[in-house]
Amino acid sequence: MAGHALLMKAGLAEDDDHMQVVAISLFVTLLCACIVLGHLLEETRWINESVTALILGCSAGFFVYITSGGTNSHILQFDEELFFIYLLPPIIFNAGFQVKKKQFFQNFVAIMLFGVVGVFISTAIITVGCWYLFPRFHLRSLKLRDYLAIGTIFSATDSVCTLQVLNQDETPLLYSLVFGEGVVNDATSVVLFNAIQNIGFDKLNINTGGRILLGFLYLFSMSTMLGVAVGLLSAYIIKKLYFGRHSTDREIALMALMAYLSYTLAELFYLSGILTVFFCGIVMSHYTWHNVTESSRVTSKHTFATMSFIAETFIFLYVGMDLLDVDKWALAKRSAVLPISGILIVLVLLGRAAFVFPLSVILNHVRRTPSTHINFQRQIIMWWAGLMRGAVSIALAFQQFTTFGDTRNPDYATMLCSTITVVIFSTVAFGLLSKPLIACLLPEHLRAVHASNSSPSSPKESRSLDLEISLLSGQTDGQGLLRRSSLSMLLQDPTVAVHHFWRKLDDSYMRPVFGGRGFTQNPPDSPR
Amino acid sequence: MAGHALLMKAGLAEDDDHMQVVAISLFVTLLCACIVLGHLLEETRWINESVTALILGCSAGFFVYITSGGTNSHILQFDEELFFIYLLPPIIFNAGFQVKKKQFFQNFVAIMLFGVVGVFISTAIITVGCWYLFPRFHLRSLKLRDYLAIGTIFSATDSVCTLQVLNQDETPLLYSLVFGEGVVNDATSVVLFNAIQNIGFDKLNINTGGRILLGFLYLFSMSTMLGVAVGLLSAYIIKKLYFGRHSTDREIALMALMAYLSYTLAELFYLSGILTVFFCGIVMSHYTWHNVTESSRVTSKHTFATMSFIAETFIFLYVGMDLLDVDKWALAKRSAVLPISGILIVLVLLGRAAFVFPLSVILNHVRRTPSTHINFQRQIIMWWAGLMRGAVSIALAFQQFTTFGDTRNPDYATMLCSTITVVIFSTVAFGLLSKPLIACLLPEHLRAVHASNSSPSSPKESRSLDLEISLLSGQTDGQGLLRRSSLSMLLQDPTVAVHHFWRKLDDSYMRPVFGGRGFTQNPPDSPR
Repeated sequence: MAGHALLMKAGLAEDDDHMQVVAISLFVTLLCACIVLGHLLEETRWINESVTALILGCSAGFFVYITSGGTNSHILQFDEELFFIYLLPPIIFNAGFQVKKKQFFQNFVAIMLFGVVGVFISTAIITVGCWYLFPRFHLRSLKLRDYLAIGTIFSATDSVCTLQVLNQDETPLLYSLVFGEGVVNDATSVVLFNAIQNIGFDKLNINTGGRILLGFLYLFSMSTMLGVAVGLLSAYIIKKLYFGRHSTDREIALMALMAYLSYTLAELFYLSGILTVFFCGIVMSHYTWHNVTESSRVTSKHTFATMSFIAETFIFLYVGMDLLDVDKWALAKRSAVLPISGILIVLVLLGRAAFVFPLSVILNHVRRTPSTHINFQRQIIMWWAGLMRGAVSIALAFQQFTTFGDTRNPDYATMLCSTITVVIFSTVAFGLLSKPLIACLLPEHLRAVHASNSSPSSPKESRSLDLEISLLSGQTDGQGLLRRSSLSMLLQDPTVAVHHFWRKLDDSYMRPVFGGRGFTQNPPDSPR
Repeated sequence: MAGHALLMKAGLAEDDDHMQVVAISLFVTLLCACIVLGHLLEETRWINESVTALILGCSAGFFVYITSGGTNSHILQFDEELFFIYLLPPIIFNAGFQVKKKQFFQNFVAIMLFGVVGVFISTAIITVGCWYLFPRFHLRSLKLRDYLAIGTIFSATDSVCTLQVLNQDETPLLYSLVFGEGVVNDATSVVLFNAIQNIGFDKLNINTGGRILLGFLYLFSMSTMLGVAVGLLSAYIIKKLYFGRHSTDREIALMALMAYLSYTLAELFYLSGILTVFFCGIVMSHYTWHNVTESSRVTSKHTFATMSFIAETFIFLYVGMDLLDVDKWALAKRSAVLPISGILIVLVLLGRAAFVFPLSVILNHVRRTPSTHINFQRQIIMWWAGLMRGAVSIALAFQQFTTFGDTRNPDYATMLCSTITVVIFSTVAFGLLSKPLIACLLPEHLRAVHASNSSPSSPKESRSLDLEISLLSGQTDGQGLLRRSSLSMLLQDPTVAVHHFWRKLDDSYMRPVFGGRGFTQNPPDSPR
């Protein structure tokens, strides 16, 4: 996923410049239509922007297919680098920037278990399943590297649909787990994918697994450190210069450029830009965001969210259009696409079940507080939330199976067609079923969402959680309590203790240098 | 300037993907450095971001030149389409979005005289001068089309330096004229440039001038109408749907996408995207901006300004790097570059003097109110404000004299080198002299800027101007007065009367349909 040459070609006629303008105009019009339709359909809460974009993209592709006499379905043709250089960084950065840090770090162990260990388990199951089953459908040119790539491709989840249905005030634990796992999972999949790319598979032996794990750990830790470093640097620069004195625009420009810089620097050092930009986002929202002016805060929050929103809509629109791609289908083994897609969907269901339920049981065993208990209904929702496949899967599949948006190997074309089918099926079918499922499993929750004067689903639970949050955040009147009982807390729950020591470090050393809540001119709110 | 294939190639080694990442990282780092340095140097008010970016770009180019052993000075190599597809639209849209509409329409006649008629006069003088003088420096391959293009290229001004020194509260008339002329002038130059491209020069006869004028009028009126139409459509959509109910991000996304759509639609119909996006910006700030939520208003204002800021810094950085471009200088007639640049600078000085002073005299003769009198000091400032050449000149020159960032004709290479020399010289030399010149011509103005408790430079004048503004805006208590005396106003001053009828149309028909100040939920402020 290094930054290759950026090529953006008109799919219809490369030599005709004007067709390019037609294509861009049509694509921008479709994006606008997605936004308007998504808004109109939002009332129903059944259909979201992803599904709207997919359906609109399919329709536009069908229209182009008809008007071009069955020779084309594309408006624009991109290579996979476009995803990684322009579209993914804003999405992942925004995820880090908007993540609720308190809940994220409070549930850090659980999120890491689901997001990191879960990806390894899911990858293993999907890889083995495909390796065993695919040759029966005459896909014989795929190598072990390809199967491992398929495993990571279909382990990257897209939990947007579920998050739209969950209410974060009613079920904070579940919301935090689903959101946190979603972003960590994306980053882990990409890092694991890259770790697999870097390994030589000429001699397959017992060490291969160990080398993948070592490569993964190296990429994960170095990328995280780089992201934190760039984020802290931006906080330091803006705090020292205090740009707000003159210009909000400079502050926004510097934040956006340094976030992007963290991504390109990671690529420069052959690290994972996705992970770097995610942690850069977290650090920026914790320090940098508090050092800028009030209008910069409003602007940065919404600008980053908007860029992420446009990038996501863009990807789904493109994927919808890709469904009818003539070249791919002409080359692919068409009879194999449907069974392979079916196998992949079953493996996705199995692979996710194989880690959500066991890991939840382990977590419940370790963390005995009732507020963090993941009961069976919640386990099912956790499982369901990660069944949708989205932008990251598509991007990784394009990177693995194409060269500049084109494909020569029939097996590769088959895999691309299957990936698009799985993404569209899982997004539409699983996505549409999310609301009824949650309504069935959390009936009192959904009622509360609809009634405006809602009462918490479980008052006792949310009160104990509130207490825990205020203890963890070290704010208000929890300060004294924290100082007194830190040793007993360490014995009770290591996560809480780690968080406590982090708060002390943050208050004593980090904030005075890098700014942050309470260390700036005007007391601000958190970005979310 | 149609939307050709977008190619962005690494200047150093096309086959080495990693060099591309190095290049992007370096470029983003330089952009960050420009912002920080520009902030640190802003105190002095002598150096602005443009000059900083130019100097940093030159230094970086020199560094690359040295480290590559004198074979290269580029980090990235762009073709001119990048300017027109990505960099110019945000700059021009932001100019339209941030323009002070009251003052703009109040001085509409003056701004149009300077911005449209002025470009024609300046183009004619520069074209004739070059046509007469250039063949003496052995540039024999240039055709009439090239000379006309040179005329428009060097008629596009860049008044950023002057605007940074002028205080808009102290000298509202001058500020409005300089800013208004700056944006109209840019648009006119591009439209005229395109009109010249579309004319066949195989048979040069008496009608050529007429055809250029007709082509210009067609492009100007159609582009304006398209921009207004798309702007009104965006206002109508957002007013009807009232996105704020759900999401600020959707509103921002829709505004940005529809602004860009207006640009691509103009290109689609072979119109001038620059002019379209400028008027789309004006309409959006007048209607759409008032229909969105409060946070959308803050965000959109700063986001568009930031995008414009980054695009401008990017262009100057690139131009600075281009100064040492080895390929161009190897091909160019090096001995001719300096005299040609000198001739161009003299022609720019003459061409601008030839319309600023006569047109000011005419305006003073027609508009006899003391508040709109342009005295000799102000005429000199008007003249000086438009001497700098910037992004638009560079972009047009690249379009005329290169094919995909490369050049084959030695005369074309010579013209490119001369253009870059003129841009750098005028920005640095004329830009740095702006402050002393204005301090000399408007001594009481500069004193007022520096003293915090400043008194207006001319109390009587600013009071009469305030009165006129409140009359024109039709707000507060001026409403009754306006209704009573519309006929007598028409006889006194046609501009005022036109504005008055426009206000009535706006209040009675436009605002109820498209929204706007006073027709939305929460009473807002104007974007600027």
